[in-house]
Amino acid sequence: MEYLEQLLLSHLPDRDETESLKRIADDIIGQINSICLKAKIDAVPIEVGSVSKHTNLKCSDIDIFITFSKEYSTEFIEKKGLEIGHTVLKNGIEKYAEHPYVSGTIDNISVDIVPSFMIEKGQHIVSTVDRTPLHTEYVNNNTDPQKIHDILLLKVFMKLINVYGSEIAVSGFSGYLCEVLIIHFGSFENFIKHMSGLKGKLRVPEDFPEERYREPVIIIDPVDPNRNAGAAVSEENLARLKLASNLYISGNYSLFKDKGEIHENRGTFIKIFTMPRPDIIDDIIYPQAVRLGNKLFKIFSKYGFMPVSSEIYCGKNIQILIEYEREEMPELLIHQGPPVYSSEAIKFINIWQKSEKLLRGPYIMDNRVYVDIKNNTEQFDTLFRREIEKTDIGKNLDEFKNDINVINYKNGMKLEVVEKFYSKYLFS
Amino acid sequence: MEYLEQLLLSHLPDRDETESLKRIADDIIGQINSICLKAKIDAVPIEVGSVSKHTNLKCSDIDIFITFSKEYSTEFIEKKGLEIGHTVLKNGIEKYAEHPYVSGTIDNISVDIVPSFMIEKGQHIVSTVDRTPLHTEYVNNNTDPQKIHDILLLKVFMKLINVYGSEIAVSGFSGYLCEVLIIHFGSFENFIKHMSGLKGKLRVPEDFPEERYREPVIIIDPVDPNRNAGAAVSEENLARLKLASNLYISGNYSLFKDKGEIHENRGTFIKIFTMPRPDIIDDIIYPQAVRLGNKLFKIFSKYGFMPVSSEIYCGKNIQILIEYEREEMPELLIHQGPPVYSSEAIKFINIWQKSEKLLRGPYIMDNRVYVDIKNNTEQFDTLFRREIEKTDIGKNLDEFKNDINVINYKNGMKLEVVEKFYSKYLFS
Repeated sequence: MEYLEQLLLSHLPDRDETESLKRIADDIIGQINSICLKAKIDAVPIEVGSVSKHTNLKCSDIDIFITFSKEYSTEFIEKKGLEIGHTVLKNGIEKYAEHPYVSGTIDNISVDIVPSFMIEKGQHIVSTVDRTPLHTEYVNNNTDPQKIHDILLLKVFMKLINVYGSEIAVSGFSGYLCEVLIIHFGSFENFIKHMSGLKGKLRVPEDFPEERYREPVIIIDPVDPNRNAGAAVSEENLARLKLASNLYISGNYSLFKDKGEIHENRGTFIKIFTMPRPDIIDDIIYPQAVRLGNKLFKIFSKYGFMPVSSEIYCGKNIQILIEYEREEMPELLIHQGPPVYSSEAIKFINIWQKSEKLLRGPYIMDNRVYVDIKNNTEQFDTLFRREIEKTDIGKNLDEFKNDINVINYKNGMKLEVVEKFYSKYLFS
Repeated sequence: MEYLEQLLLSHLPDRDETESLKRIADDIIGQINSICLKAKIDAVPIEVGSVSKHTNLKCSDIDIFITFSKEYSTEFIEKKGLEIGHTVLKNGIEKYAEHPYVSGTIDNISVDIVPSFMIEKGQHIVSTVDRTPLHTEYVNNNTDPQKIHDILLLKVFMKLINVYGSEIAVSGFSGYLCEVLIIHFGSFENFIKHMSGLKGKLRVPEDFPEERYREPVIIIDPVDPNRNAGAAVSEENLARLKLASNLYISGNYSLFKDKGEIHENRGTFIKIFTMPRPDIIDDIIYPQAVRLGNKLFKIFSKYGFMPVSSEIYCGKNIQILIEYEREEMPELLIHQGPPVYSSEAIKFINIWQKSEKLLRGPYIMDNRVYVDIKNNTEQFDTLFRREIEKTDIGKNLDEFKNDINVINYKNGMKLEVVEKFYSKYLFS
C-alpha cells in the first residue's frame, strides 16, 4: 500500500471517536435548541468545522456555532452566547476571537461554542466568523466520499511537510483551504500534478489576475469573491508544497521524514537573546518576536558584525539566535560626507581634518566628500543595550526590554532555538 | 595682491620666452610656405594651440598644422606631412595621433608639426585634428585682453586643484575648455560663481538638455554643435571644481595646497600588485590598469576578503593597491540553489545532502533551495594565480600576466602607489 495512504490510516479517528463526536454534537445541539425555544430566542445551533464536514483527522474538536437572527445586536448575541455556552459546557472558560466564546471539554473532547449572525451566501457579514457556517454548507454540498478521502489525504500530506495550519507561526494552509483545493482540482493527484509544475503563484481559479493580490497564494473564497482565502500562506510554505509535490511524483518519500544532522563549528559566531514570553496567544506574540529578530539583525549589520542568519523560537520563552561573522567591529570607517555643492561640505572638511580620528582625506568620490576615520569600536553588549533602550521592541515585549539576556553560544549548549537552527531542513 | 593673481604671475612666460616662441613659429611657417610653393602643394601652415591664442602658460610647446586641400588623399597628406616635418625639425621623431606627425625641439622649445585637412566651419571633418584650426580661429575671434587674462587665471586655478588636462589619467579640463568657459561666462569670477552654486551637471549652454549626453560635463563645441567638448571630464573632477569654487569664494585657500598626512595602522590589510609597464602612451595603458584594478577588486570580493578601497599608479611600472578587511576566506558559505519548481532542485538536494561539506540543510528560503556548506578556503595568492590565468587583463598587459608580483604591504614600505593611497586628499 502506498506510503501516504498508510500514513492516512494512522491519522483517521477510530469508530469510537467518530461515534462520540456525533453523540456529543447532537446532544449539544439538542440542548441549545431547547434553551432557545424556552427563552424565545431566534437562533439556530449549527455544527461547523471539520467534524461537520467529515474531513476530520484524529483528535479533532467540536465547533458549534449559535447563529442568531440579524435582528439582534452584537452585545445581545455575545451575552446570550456566553450564557448558553456556560450552561452547556460545565467546565467551559471564556476565550476571545472576534466574539467572546466558551471553550470546554466533554468526555475529553474539546468543544467550542461560538455566537455568530445568521448569514445567507452573498449577504453582508458582520464579523468573519459569520462566514464559517457558509463554508460548512459549501463543502458539504460539493464533496462526495472520494473527495472527502482526498481532502483527508491532502491534510495528512500538508501535516507531513509542515505546512498545515493558518496560525501566524505556521503561515500554512488551513483545513478549509485543503477542502477548497480538492473541490477545485477534483482529486489529490490532480492537485499535486498542478503543484509540481507550478512556477509562480498558486491561483484558484487558475486564471485569476495575479497582480490583484500581492500574496503568493490566491484562493478566492467560493462563498465570498472579495476574499483571498489563501492570504495567510507564506512564500516558503508555497515553495515547500511545490517541492514536496515534485518529490511525491518522483516517489521520493524519504526527504519528507529526514531531519538535518547537527554540524557545529561553522566558523561563525552565535549570540542568543532570551526573554520572558508574555502570556498572550502566539498569533500576537510571534510576529512581535519576528520583528524583534529583524531589529537585532539590523543592529549587528549597522555596526559591522556581519550577521548571516537568524532563527526564532517562541514557546515557553522567546529565544532569538543571530549568527554573525565578525567578532569585533571594524577599525576603519569610510565615512560619507555631504555632496560637494552643499554648504555642509566645507563644514564637514573643517571638522574632520582636525579630528584625531582622521585616517585619510578628506577626499572626493563621485560628487561627495569622504573621510576615512578610526571607528569607535565597542563591545556588542554595550551598544546593544544602548540601541535596544531607544527602540520600540513590540507592544507586548517592551516591558521586558531589560530582561533580555544575551548568551554567547558555545558548542553543546541546549536551547530550543539552537536545535531549531541546526536542524533546519526542507520541511522543518 | 590676491593669491591666485600672484600664482598666475609665476606661471606666465617671460619676455624672452614669448619672443622665442614668436620667432620660432614665424620661421617654421615661412619655411613650410616656401616648401609648398616650390613643390606646388596646395597647403597652408597655421599655428594652433595656446601660443597662437595668447593663452599659453610657461613652457608651452608650439603646434603648427599644415592644412592641406581636401582634394588630396589621406595617404598623400600623411606622407607629405612627415616629409615637411622632418625637413623643418632636424631632430624630429615620428609620433602618432590620428595622423602620424613629427615632434622635435628648437632652442629647447617643443615643436609639433601635424598634417590636417583644410576645413571651414560647418564642413564635414575627416579626422578630429582637422577641427583644431577652427578652435584657434574661434578663440581668437572671441577674446580680448581681459578674457585672455581670465583664461590664464582659470588654467592656473585648474592646475592648482589638479583638474587641468584632458589625458585619460587626469580626465580633467583641456586648455580649449578653459577658453570656451571664459568666453561663455564672460569672466573668471562669473564662472566661479556659477560653479559654486551648481548642483548637477555643468552645461554650456546652460539650458542644454542634460539627458542628451550621459557625461557629467556637457560643453557643446562652438565650432561643432554635435560634439560634447566636455566628454572627457570625470565626475570627481567636476566635483573638485565645484568644491574649489566654494572654497575660493569663501577665501579659503589653504585647502588647495594641503596634502593628507600619512596615517598607517588602519586595521585593514593591503596587498600591492606590481607589473612591468609596456612602452605605450598613458592614454592607452592607464585605462587598462584601471580595468585590471577593478578585476582584482572583484576577485577579493568574490572570495569574501572584503575589499574596501584601491589605488592605482601608472608610471615607470604599474602598481595596484587593494585594501581589504579580511585576511582569511570565510569558512561558511550560504549556497543558493535552484528554484523549487525546477527539476534541478531535486538534483541539488540529492547531491548536497550527501556532501561531506554540508553544514546545514538543504532548506527553503523564498522560493529556492539552499545549503550551508564548508567553504573551500584557500590562500589569496593561490586563487589569485588561478583567477588571473583565465582572465583577459588588457590587450597590452596580457603578456605580463605571469610577471605580476604580489606584495603583502607592511608599514613603512616605500612605493609610489602607497604614497598616493595614503596622501589621498581633496585635490590630489
